Amino acid sequence: MPVRVVAFGGGHGLSASLRALRSRAADGLELDITAVVTVGDDGGSSGRLLAERDALLPPGDLRQALAALADDREITQRTAELLQYRFAEIPAPGVGGPDPLVGHAVGNLLLLGLMEMLGDPVQALDHAAAMVGARGRVLPMARHAIGIEADMRGADPERPDDVVTVRGQHAVAVAHGHVEAVRIDPADPPVCAQAVAAIDEADWLIFGPGSWFTSVLPHLMVPQLAEAIMKSPARRLVTLNLATENETLGLSVADHLAALHLYLPGLRVDVVLADGRWVGEPEPVRRAAEALGARLVLAPVAVADGRPKHDPESLGVALVPVLGAAR
Amino acid sequence: MPVRVVAFGGGHGLSASLRALRSRAADGLELDITAVVTVGDDGGSSGRLLAERDALLPPGDLRQALAALADDREITQRTAELLQYRFAEIPAPGVGGPDPLVGHAVGNLLLLGLMEMLGDPVQALDHAAAMVGARGRVLPMARHAIGIEADMRGADPERPDDVVTVRGQHAVAVAHGHVEAVRIDPADPPVCAQAVAAIDEADWLIFGPGSWFTSVLPHLMVPQLAEAIMKSPARRLVTLNLATENETLGLSVADHLAALHLYLPGLRVDVVLADGRWVGEPEPVRRAAEALGARLVLAPVAVADGRPKHDPESLGVALVPVLGAAR
Repeated sequence: MPVRVVAFGGGHGLSASLRALRSRAADGLELDITAVVTVGDDGGSSGRLLAERDALLPPGDLRQALAALADDREITQRTAELLQYRFAEIPAPGVGGPDPLVGHAVGNLLLLGLMEMLGDPVQALDHAAAMVGARGRVLPMARHAIGIEADMRGADPERPDDVVTVRGQHAVAVAHGHVEAVRIDPADPPVCAQAVAAIDEADWLIFGPGSWFTSVLPHLMVPQLAEAIMKSPARRLVTLNLATENETLGLSVADHLAALHLYLPGLRVDVVLADGRWVGEPEPVRRAAEALGARLVLAPVAVADGRPKHDPESLGVALVPVLGAAR
Repeated sequence: MPVRVVAFGGGHGLSASLRALRSRAADGLELDITAVVTVGDDGGSSGRLLAERDALLPPGDLRQALAALADDREITQRTAELLQYRFAEIPAPGVGGPDPLVGHAVGNLLLLGLMEMLGDPVQALDHAAAMVGARGRVLPMARHAIGIEADMRGADPERPDDVVTVRGQHAVAVAHGHVEAVRIDPADPPVCAQAVAAIDEADWLIFGPGSWFTSVLPHLMVPQLAEAIMKSPARRLVTLNLATENETLGLSVADHLAALHLYLPGLRVDVVLADGRWVGEPEPVRRAAEALGARLVLAPVAVADGRPKHDPESLGVALVPVLGAAR
């Protein structure tokens, strides 16, 4: 029986997690991987496709998850590389004028086409997964795009002491200030039944790494996902970020863990995974983990060159004994 | 040993020919199929990608050939369907404004991305072929986009007796008038070495069906392709069109055959395939075929509903005894 893993997140953080799991799966560890991906992105290529073309879902984070799970064969790796290929600015050709493709990733356009053609986001994602020989399934957190908004103190530099509401995942992610509260809009979006089923049957649920307020916590705000997570018999792993981002400035590592309880009271966690070189003084983190019912596991999971970036290979190696303990 | 077939053309005509060959290959006839595709399209989605993004090649006809060769499996057929999916006008979403994706086929954007990413059109086409499990190879007639222009009498309605030059494949295809001469620009484009090699080693070269002046004859105008065709020991089949199009108004079926000699003097043809229900009085056609050294084969190759459209299945059935004669 494979270990059934559901990884929640979005963007680069989820990618690192999925690449870690895929590398173990490629090495023979029996894993049944499902990614449940945030659908709040309103910036860049995804944002344009939502605004200009009424895309059902912002494809960017879904595309990244698919590329991360792509099989190692040359053809599927090349297809994954194509999905990630982004049309860059080119020296003006004869006609000139703005080039409407600049900034779009090929995979975003491909997912948009599949969703329009098939009408169903899960069928579209399953087909794209087959195209890259994905070693796992990629599902959206909700069946249509959601909005993310945050009450932030200091986000308006002219009123540094006031709390203002910042709307949109992109705006929240780049704002400077202290997040007082985050919400999704609508508050109760329609969920993906396949994601709920995967949570029900999982051995492990994995949260993080990733932008805490915009990629990790939103899943806990979706009522039907929260309910499924609370009811699931699966063990739970939280992989901590290596460095804080704009949106979490002023939030300590321990605060990151506390935020999980703030948005999903009663959430039990089994393991918190962090990198000893990045976590700082471990005691407060250990206590914050214990407050969730978890033990803290320290392992070298960052890239070697000193950047605050998870190394999928090292993260995979660190995950093996943790996930193995579930059997 | 498989029968090595090179099919020349573009657009729907070449598609019909490739679907006919693929249906026979799927039924167990050993075929090694190479499509050599016109690269003169300057209209629609392809034209925009050439103008706005300096695309190396117009992808539209190449995409159609790839979709026609896609393997029968559900996944590759769905990928082929995705390549052919065209972004349609949608009811204006919130933001409004023109939607820059409207009119583009997903496969055109995918081929553009592959060509930019890999820098080499043949590598890009080979990868796209692998993505649809193509039962054959798709190659361009030249290594970069070419222009097509025609001297046409009556194309300018205000000067119906004058010969005017019409520039661009799209303009030529939709112009009303009588074509006096067609040229490609540049006159000697760089050819694809793999196409020349396929012609050298072919058992059969297949010309048509398709828009005669813009999809069938241009291959004969490329000096290096013409030379390879003349030197090749392969037998040659010409599949005639069922009905005339705008650009060939005033051109009889026999004239279509004569045009082959006009643009490639000395071209020897072995078989001319036509549908008896569409060819009209067969005698002039038989004589025109004999002037090229060919025998005329009449077979029911059109769709049953009376439209002037080749039925790939019937065309495939008609091709078997012809190609079999090469062995």
